[in-house]
Amino acid sequence: MSQLANQSPEGIAVITLYNYFRSSAAFRVRLALNYKALAYDPVAVSLVAGAHKEPQYAALNPQGLVPALVIDDKVLTQSMAIIEYLDETHPQPALLPADALGRHRVRALSQAIACDLHPINNLRILKYLKQPLGHSQEEIDTWYRHWCDVGLAGFEALLADGGAGTYCHGDQVSMADICLVPQVFNAVRFQVEMSKYPLAHGIFERLMKLPAFDAAQPSRQPDAPAA
Amino acid sequence: MSQLANQSPEGIAVITLYNYFRSSAAFRVRLALNYKALAYDPVAVSLVAGAHKEPQYAALNPQGLVPALVIDDKVLTQSMAIIEYLDETHPQPALLPADALGRHRVRALSQAIACDLHPINNLRILKYLKQPLGHSQEEIDTWYRHWCDVGLAGFEALLADGGAGTYCHGDQVSMADICLVPQVFNAVRFQVEMSKYPLAHGIFERLMKLPAFDAAQPSRQPDAPAA
Repeated sequence: MSQLANQSPEGIAVITLYNYFRSSAAFRVRLALNYKALAYDPVAVSLVAGAHKEPQYAALNPQGLVPALVIDDKVLTQSMAIIEYLDETHPQPALLPADALGRHRVRALSQAIACDLHPINNLRILKYLKQPLGHSQEEIDTWYRHWCDVGLAGFEALLADGGAGTYCHGDQVSMADICLVPQVFNAVRFQVEMSKYPLAHGIFERLMKLPAFDAAQPSRQPDAPAA
Repeated sequence: MSQLANQSPEGIAVITLYNYFRSSAAFRVRLALNYKALAYDPVAVSLVAGAHKEPQYAALNPQGLVPALVIDDKVLTQSMAIIEYLDETHPQPALLPADALGRHRVRALSQAIACDLHPINNLRILKYLKQPLGHSQEEIDTWYRHWCDVGLAGFEALLADGGAGTYCHGDQVSMADICLVPQVFNAVRFQVEMSKYPLAHGIFERLMKLPAFDAAQPSRQPDAPAA
């Protein structure tokens, strides 16, 4: 596990991200690190090859899930918990608003994706639908699109409360944007029609013009297959 | 929608919880409110009868999910976001530790249940497995127990990092305990053998001796059927 000596704004910190190019949760952490200009050393953990189930990785993250973020000797897991930690320890630029109601709104939007949508369509769930449940790829794709549509429709309805602006929460990038973007990549990959969700889709398009977001996308990761 | 005039420590606040006795997410919010001694007026939203899909409720929570918490005229959704809001606006007794690493640990434990376990076994998922996917009750129960076991095994492994004490994070009740308890109720209802998870089970048993936890359990809610 190679580690580069990276420099954080607060001093010298070595940050290593155990990463998989297509993992939505890892993508969220890449976005947060890039947005806060925190350099990191990525280590690929192939979910398809089962690297997350190997003892070496389990010693790092006993849940066997990607990502894990190692800052100096501290191992952090769970993407939203990692983002909150990064925001508390590297407050600028902020990923949560200054007011309690605003923080609630950003967390609720984030959880509408990270709790209500993403887990149901995770790779391990799709694998279980295939075996032991014996479903066809068509049935699995229908499942995927169904829960994408339910989740994105709910997210779109939450966005329509008047609090959205250039991004999910006013005109500042927040954790909600970081949760939205990987989910849109997934939706598009499974041919969900994003035009049904014009607020979310417009925000996504504006976010992807930001260099920090562009650089975090799956196809730009070192473990992504050549196009 | 009846509302009682309740008194919060910070002044007069009217708190209404749109609640379902068996909803894990609503159970979490009941636990947080009870633990902080915040009185509230429960309004039953029957998930089995589909009350969460009626326009009256959608106007409150456009995601159509339980719970929604109304404090004065503010509508809050998403159980973990609600708990963070309550903790920020009613800090004592705290449900998150004072240090950033401690907060990360509590949030990660909470998310290991609220993101990685609970959503996969939600009622709407079990309904979809039944129709359109056509699975038998036995196959659905096997799905339920499988994801309970995967999730609780991961949670138990996270707990074993040395940070647990009387409760999930040292000897103070935290949001992680609030996420654990409803999940154990679900696991027991589906005959998952909790003795496989001795740390989590021991913490659960200690928590249930607290009056705030006892009063929040499903069977004690006004909308629970008579035993």
